[in-house]
Amino acid sequence: MEIKEITPEQLDPKAFIEDQVVKIKAEVGDGRAINALSGGVDSSVVTMLGHRALGDRLRTVFIQNGLMREGEPEHIVALFKDLGVIVELVPAEDVFFGALKGLTDPEQKREAITSSFYKEVFGGMVRDGEAKFLFQGTNLTDVEETVAGVKRQHNILAQLGIDPEKEYGYKVIEPVLQLRKTAIRMVGKELGLPEELYARPPFPGPALAARVIGEVTPERVALVRKATSIVEQMFKDTGAFQYLAILHSDRVTGLRDNKRDFGFQVEVRCWDSKDARLGKPTEVPFSLLAEVGNRITTEVPGVVSVTYNIAAKPPSTIEAV
Amino acid sequence: MEIKEITPEQLDPKAFIEDQVVKIKAEVGDGRAINALSGGVDSSVVTMLGHRALGDRLRTVFIQNGLMREGEPEHIVALFKDLGVIVELVPAEDVFFGALKGLTDPEQKREAITSSFYKEVFGGMVRDGEAKFLFQGTNLTDVEETVAGVKRQHNILAQLGIDPEKEYGYKVIEPVLQLRKTAIRMVGKELGLPEELYARPPFPGPALAARVIGEVTPERVALVRKATSIVEQMFKDTGAFQYLAILHSDRVTGLRDNKRDFGFQVEVRCWDSKDARLGKPTEVPFSLLAEVGNRITTEVPGVVSVTYNIAAKPPSTIEAV
Repeated sequence: MEIKEITPEQLDPKAFIEDQVVKIKAEVGDGRAINALSGGVDSSVVTMLGHRALGDRLRTVFIQNGLMREGEPEHIVALFKDLGVIVELVPAEDVFFGALKGLTDPEQKREAITSSFYKEVFGGMVRDGEAKFLFQGTNLTDVEETVAGVKRQHNILAQLGIDPEKEYGYKVIEPVLQLRKTAIRMVGKELGLPEELYARPPFPGPALAARVIGEVTPERVALVRKATSIVEQMFKDTGAFQYLAILHSDRVTGLRDNKRDFGFQVEVRCWDSKDARLGKPTEVPFSLLAEVGNRITTEVPGVVSVTYNIAAKPPSTIEAV
Repeated sequence: MEIKEITPEQLDPKAFIEDQVVKIKAEVGDGRAINALSGGVDSSVVTMLGHRALGDRLRTVFIQNGLMREGEPEHIVALFKDLGVIVELVPAEDVFFGALKGLTDPEQKREAITSSFYKEVFGGMVRDGEAKFLFQGTNLTDVEETVAGVKRQHNILAQLGIDPEKEYGYKVIEPVLQLRKTAIRMVGKELGLPEELYARPPFPGPALAARVIGEVTPERVALVRKATSIVEQMFKDTGAFQYLAILHSDRVTGLRDNKRDFGFQVEVRCWDSKDARLGKPTEVPFSLLAEVGNRITTEVPGVVSVTYNIAAKPPSTIEAV
């Protein structure tokens, strides 16, 4: 299937929104829809488009997987409340950490999260609910990387455990399929999203689990959550495309109170990129790097070493896992 | 035992050398001595002091452990030949890689190398030879870090499996015990060592094994050897105290020919330091970091990601293992 891109230059955000609202109304008719909001720009835009077209016939849920950033679930719910959109917070930490227990292989970890999300938590809600229309924030870069074998296949119905032949009527709606990140942000701004949502650096689907090399436990997620919070505070004025902290599984020798301390290493990545297809490490002042190194080793328990990524994509990728 | 430091300001290199030569002659008399040269500044200075005092009654060996840098053993032997000192190259790669097989714990790896070196290879030479005097390049920072529990204990006779009570007569001579790095370099220069030896950045005893996180195999050493060679070429004009490449055990997601490639990560460290007790990451031009990232991912097979360390010592340490 060839998908025709709408470039930022071609995009008229107002016309795009009106067009999508008409299409969604035509497609859903008087049916009901559901979507999962992560707070990223893609799912935020899709949530707004869906609510503009369907009002409260679109049910929007935020799955609390235990892998989000500091205070993020409550903050996103509050932001959408201000926009007149009710988002249901669904507690599901135990399901995700249970599925992740003992796993270290990145593909198995992603599979555990995908399966917890789609088959268990969200899948259960879809199968038990009335909605037959599912909104999904898939964008053009996702599709290309899936085709190229870089990302996992994401046929959402298959992931939900729904066979559309057998269970007639389910339909997936992907309103931003023809757009890449820059264009999606333009639409988000036009939809009235606050800047912190439409200008938000990308954040991966598996959330902080994508930032933990090796086993994902509540304790290790807490460490990378703290490091992420420091990196996001300190890099927010760089204008970079994306910045993140990764907790390594490798341990390295450190020194505390003049004694050997075999501790953790955190890697910081900060990318210049237009649309995540290509990326270069951002040139930031050296004093900022030194300060980040200092804050992370001081404020995140057990971390003795911090690095900054200096490789380009390709052959690197934005995220490590 | 309190050791009194001779600071660079207090040091008169010429007088220090004359003093040491007199002391060594008095101690060894007409006996024979042996030492192992690694090519680092400490063992190079000790080798020169010993030969100046004892001539060919000092036997100097270079143990080829398979863990040295590109062409290093042959190059060091040639440099000393030019200085009139014959160094025996002792092939022992199989002993070291055999002992390292399957080990991933840093302390067990260090123990395997120490034990291969002292008990097996060098220990055998000492026990089978005539020399009862052993030269050793221990410096004041080594002693302090050993006392503080940062480095391993290095009682050389115990390590050689020699009980001085039972096997009467063995004696260790440590001519640079009162000096730190800067002072040792001054002595090296005065001894006529070429600048590439006396100004040489420090290199750890376990050699490239200290630069491999996880199992040390000939293949993994070959990767870090190649990365080390690139880093040493590119950082040699920075004036930094020490610079190094580390091969991580963690693997990260990369992208080759538009396909996912789960590959290796190399970490680069470059330190500003006076004597290795304290260290700060060196502020180098960002273009140099980007070029190092590019060269390592291009020239070292399987490496998809490169980082630069931005933490200070303490709580980091110069080496990672």
